[in-house]
Amino acid sequence: MEDNLLLLSNSQTHGMAMFEHARDALSDFLAGRHTLYFAPYAGSDYDGYTQTIKTALKPFGVTVIGLHTVTDLQQTLQAAEVLFVGGGNSFRLLKTLEQLDMLAPVRERVSRGELRYMGSSAGTNMACPTMRTTNDMPIVQPNSFASFNLIPFQINPHYQDPLPASTHMGETREERIREFLDENNVPVLGLREGSWLRKRGTQLHLDGLANARLFRRHTDPQEYTPGTDLSWLLTEKAIFDQKA
Amino acid sequence: MEDNLLLLSNSQTHGMAMFEHARDALSDFLAGRHTLYFAPYAGSDYDGYTQTIKTALKPFGVTVIGLHTVTDLQQTLQAAEVLFVGGGNSFRLLKTLEQLDMLAPVRERVSRGELRYMGSSAGTNMACPTMRTTNDMPIVQPNSFASFNLIPFQINPHYQDPLPASTHMGETREERIREFLDENNVPVLGLREGSWLRKRGTQLHLDGLANARLFRRHTDPQEYTPGTDLSWLLTEKAIFDQKA
Repeated sequence: MEDNLLLLSNSQTHGMAMFEHARDALSDFLAGRHTLYFAPYAGSDYDGYTQTIKTALKPFGVTVIGLHTVTDLQQTLQAAEVLFVGGGNSFRLLKTLEQLDMLAPVRERVSRGELRYMGSSAGTNMACPTMRTTNDMPIVQPNSFASFNLIPFQINPHYQDPLPASTHMGETREERIREFLDENNVPVLGLREGSWLRKRGTQLHLDGLANARLFRRHTDPQEYTPGTDLSWLLTEKAIFDQKA
Repeated sequence: MEDNLLLLSNSQTHGMAMFEHARDALSDFLAGRHTLYFAPYAGSDYDGYTQTIKTALKPFGVTVIGLHTVTDLQQTLQAAEVLFVGGGNSFRLLKTLEQLDMLAPVRERVSRGELRYMGSSAGTNMACPTMRTTNDMPIVQPNSFASFNLIPFQINPHYQDPLPASTHMGETREERIREFLDENNVPVLGLREGSWLRKRGTQLHLDGLANARLFRRHTDPQEYTPGTDLSWLLTEKAIFDQKA
């Protein structure tokens, strides 16, 4: 079976209800599934966060179960059909995924097509080889920046264009991604809010409300419109820790 | 001898030449010193970065030497009178400081009052116990987030207030710092651009062009104006990895 991923830049877009901007994509992704396991580890209030997701996903006809409430996590991961990793702080999320020994079992079942993976924000970052293109503050220290590695390139969720009138001297998002490319020869897809990626086997599509911006070493950034087939990105080589 | 630190939020403020906003503070900090060693490791072009700093510090009458050009780094660190750690990417900086074995020797000589420490942006972040309050992207992985530990609290450089008209759904700076406080019981001083801290022994003062905003667990954020004596912050207890 082929793997099946839905990677959202964000769960909530300004002026809309949670997941409203991606309603059709979620309906399609969840079709025929009855139970979704939710990983709330990027947040600090697991119960409250799970309740929010439960309410937001009610229209999609799935039962939402917080992974933090199951009695045997490893057994659950082996039987689950859909995993949703929510947003929050990526460092807190990855540290917890390491402590719970979730990385290898999830990666294996997703790649065998047995477990569908949905992420938003930090959860989308986790689908990449590493968390090195997160926007989050390193509030805790995971052992390694290596994450689920379900796709061979990096995503920058909540991608933001520079504010033209800004007097702020800190780096723009684009400058941060260029710093990443100084140190790593790995494509980075800047997913603007409202957009998402859907992966099924060797097929990868961009969709949503906004263009995405692709950064590669020694190449001008490239804009892609919703609906673009980006399957070729799945065959790109990712080389970390190789200076430009 | 007492230690002597100048910790700038940023080296360049909008509409001003490099260091212009902090001219008097730099003159005072550098008084009587003739040679400044510059650590360019947060940047990618060491020579270019050193040249920029050389030009910017010319009016202060110090000779600037890039640490990457010295033949015996450890010997240089033992003899140096002033160290300036510049801004850029904090992860790249800390990884390099680890590889060069700079953390312990610098910490010891600064705390003995033999080596003056000046930082801007990432270099100011490095003066804290850890780099956990950086704004930078984790483009490379240091072994540990532990940094120079020259002060017992955390600084967030380039501190930014939320933009009132923003529709962006990513976390504001204040939200990120609150996430830090969920995981760590350590004060965080948000240093807005144009402001700095000066530490001499048990004395700590805030100065510059903007207020600073102090965040502590279970406490409302507090604003402090330039000129405020913050020496009491040096006696606060920092407890990392303690959930709220």
